[in-house]
Amino acid sequence: MTLTPATDAFADTLSQQLPADTLRRVEPRFLEEPRGRWQGSSGWVALPRSTQDVATIVRHCAQTGTGLVPYGGGTGLVGGQIAPDGAPLLLSLERMTAVRAVFPEENALTVEAGAILADVHDAAEAVNRLFPLSLASQGSARIGGLLSTNAGGINTLRYGNARDLVLGLEAVLPDGEIWNGLKRLRKDNTGYDLRHLLIGAEGTLGVITAASLKLFPRPSATGTALLATPSPATALSLLARARDILGDTISAFELIHRQGIDFLAETLPDIRRPWPEPPEWCVLIEIGTGPATDPTEALETLFASALEDGLSEDGLIAQSKQQSQDFWTIREQIPEANRRIGSISSHDIALPLSVIPEFIPEAHARLAEIDSYRINCFGHLGDGNLHFNVFPMPGRTRADHAHQRDAIKTCVHDLTHAMGGSVSAEHGIGRLKTDDMLRYGDPTKLAAMRAIKSALDPAGIMNPGAVLPD
Amino acid sequence: MTLTPATDAFADTLSQQLPADTLRRVEPRFLEEPRGRWQGSSGWVALPRSTQDVATIVRHCAQTGTGLVPYGGGTGLVGGQIAPDGAPLLLSLERMTAVRAVFPEENALTVEAGAILADVHDAAEAVNRLFPLSLASQGSARIGGLLSTNAGGINTLRYGNARDLVLGLEAVLPDGEIWNGLKRLRKDNTGYDLRHLLIGAEGTLGVITAASLKLFPRPSATGTALLATPSPATALSLLARARDILGDTISAFELIHRQGIDFLAETLPDIRRPWPEPPEWCVLIEIGTGPATDPTEALETLFASALEDGLSEDGLIAQSKQQSQDFWTIREQIPEANRRIGSISSHDIALPLSVIPEFIPEAHARLAEIDSYRINCFGHLGDGNLHFNVFPMPGRTRADHAHQRDAIKTCVHDLTHAMGGSVSAEHGIGRLKTDDMLRYGDPTKLAAMRAIKSALDPAGIMNPGAVLPD
Repeated sequence: MTLTPATDAFADTLSQQLPADTLRRVEPRFLEEPRGRWQGSSGWVALPRSTQDVATIVRHCAQTGTGLVPYGGGTGLVGGQIAPDGAPLLLSLERMTAVRAVFPEENALTVEAGAILADVHDAAEAVNRLFPLSLASQGSARIGGLLSTNAGGINTLRYGNARDLVLGLEAVLPDGEIWNGLKRLRKDNTGYDLRHLLIGAEGTLGVITAASLKLFPRPSATGTALLATPSPATALSLLARARDILGDTISAFELIHRQGIDFLAETLPDIRRPWPEPPEWCVLIEIGTGPATDPTEALETLFASALEDGLSEDGLIAQSKQQSQDFWTIREQIPEANRRIGSISSHDIALPLSVIPEFIPEAHARLAEIDSYRINCFGHLGDGNLHFNVFPMPGRTRADHAHQRDAIKTCVHDLTHAMGGSVSAEHGIGRLKTDDMLRYGDPTKLAAMRAIKSALDPAGIMNPGAVLPD
Repeated sequence: MTLTPATDAFADTLSQQLPADTLRRVEPRFLEEPRGRWQGSSGWVALPRSTQDVATIVRHCAQTGTGLVPYGGGTGLVGGQIAPDGAPLLLSLERMTAVRAVFPEENALTVEAGAILADVHDAAEAVNRLFPLSLASQGSARIGGLLSTNAGGINTLRYGNARDLVLGLEAVLPDGEIWNGLKRLRKDNTGYDLRHLLIGAEGTLGVITAASLKLFPRPSATGTALLATPSPATALSLLARARDILGDTISAFELIHRQGIDFLAETLPDIRRPWPEPPEWCVLIEIGTGPATDPTEALETLFASALEDGLSEDGLIAQSKQQSQDFWTIREQIPEANRRIGSISSHDIALPLSVIPEFIPEAHARLAEIDSYRINCFGHLGDGNLHFNVFPMPGRTRADHAHQRDAIKTCVHDLTHAMGGSVSAEHGIGRLKTDDMLRYGDPTKLAAMRAIKSALDPAGIMNPGAVLPD
């Protein structure tokens, strides 16, 4: 499918249909992405102020066969927001940030797609509610992008992924028509679920312009523990034990390997370290309880039980907000430490929980056949979601291993796939993983995806090259 | 789109591609449905034993342009399982009932589409887990139908609708290809979410053949209360109060109107009644707690708080399993009492919680302009899901009001729609509500649905006439 680039002449014609200053020449910030693997090719960006403006823009792109790339906070890690070829129009939602309405008594809130996640947290907190989606980039990630990529993060164990937090959507479909699906209903069985089709489609089936989101009661109190554990297998037993003792109150269960703490010491030495000599493995547990339960006592009960059965040999239970924050800083800064070290290849994988203890040593063994590496395996163990990232040994650089990058990725992804896992747990496909999807994806599903894409976007204008390559 | 009927010659040709006794002449039970509004026209039913057999059947229907109607437990209330015209082939999943695998440590289970819900409950209980989907027809409803209609029921407040309980699906798409999407992953962002597209599509986009389902820890203890409350508004305040005090432990919050209890007394007099003189409104609350909480004490705390603030004037907290069962029998037998009285028009609607106190009296007032009726308004208040059913006054019959049926339905549905609600909360569209979907549905969504249907099922063979009429 050949698309027309968004030229100056295109911008000129489209500008006449829109309020002043809606179209601009792109600034460099729109052409970069966090991992520095792609450089955008677009010359123009549209910054609409309303859903109607978005519809005008999409319709004009459809009529002229011009590619359109929706742009949220620009924090995506798989290049979904960056088109390196074809100079499509960028569509930034950054001016559409309104919280349209809050319904505390319904535990719901309606917000425009350009709202930053941290601001949605604040809007919920202002009515004593919780919007639980939480991830490292929440200070810049925007709701539209978070939903389009079905973002995960640290609270999915208790509250689900982004798609589980959505009651309704408003979106502009690839023909420029507006779908008003913003109903705030917990049950609505009136036809196909377009909502879940657009969520996770990474902007290839339309532009999400607003969403009705679920809110939750805020826990009365929270507790945080950092427990050393001998192995991934005991970490999983500890998760089961935690569920028995703490039930639904567990909001995060994060696995941390010593490699991550060592990287922190190497690159961010000011971060307070919990142990002088970190354990091989530890888990960070967060719970949120009702008024009847003291979270510190509950975590102490868990730790005592874990200690008795050898599921943990050492543990720290936060005694203050500051200490809790210190524990979280370790987890949250590991990605930054990783960036500073510079990975050769990073993998965002999910596995059935029960195969994880077998997967980790097997992946290490297979990689050792390629070369020697430092491996930082960490992530959302409660969801079976591991970030399995491969780094050079001290004294070597990622450039030294550039020729091995494909072999490393294939090694990790082949094993993941063979063990019933997913090669994109929470980051999406974007432009990074289209080959993986062709390699590992179910052919019947791929054919259905192509049929749906052609049906809804016959000209192929929406985020061309992302998710489904030509 | 003209489809070929499943004639004897068709059955003969298809039979040769299948194991013996896969195709049979239909028995009458396949041609009836619970409300007696439609009579099926099919002459043949296929009873496959494997996914491969289902694929053979679907492929042959696609090649010959023959309509195909998937059939689960036959309990649907909107005619989705009954084709009154065109003599399509019926496809019953009743021989595919295997629990393929149970993964207690992952809280997951893989089951074939023909499994009966109550048997899935038992399979989960056998490993000390809970599969929470629960509704009146669970002794005969089958998993494939429950997922295809995105069934709701009494536990959705805590655990979600059917779609929220599915990790993965296996299905045969309308071209006869098998999609193996049975992964047991909590996070998997690899392309469009086919799973949520098939769930709720009522068999119009393919046949679900198996599912990986989420299991949950069983609550250590459960408690049941029946609390009288002055009005729907106080019932909602009571729900908010219950959430404050009982948190995530609330699994059901059911509204009951006196009319339902009176119908029980009239039609099923042996059922034990909780009050000699029933209150105008009451709510049935079920909680499931962890080991640290006594559910009876927790409900007593709630009741004391509700009493103090006038949210309840009278209440019963079950002191035994038997008493809890007695309370539930009332709720569960109301639909049977309704059937015996015979409704003129029944409505399965959902509303934003905050408008319910306004909706109920307004709907009564508008109906009173048509005629005098008895109205039984009950349902899953916690989800905003009301069953708003209209009956003749004593001494009159539903036949007396047959000419008003359309006016009643339009009156209730117009008001529901105007107040931001849904005219099909949990029962689906089937054949009963296709007109409603055209009347109230978003035109952009409808166009997208038609495009998706045409893309995946170009010959229109899958459940013709359901959801999307020609």
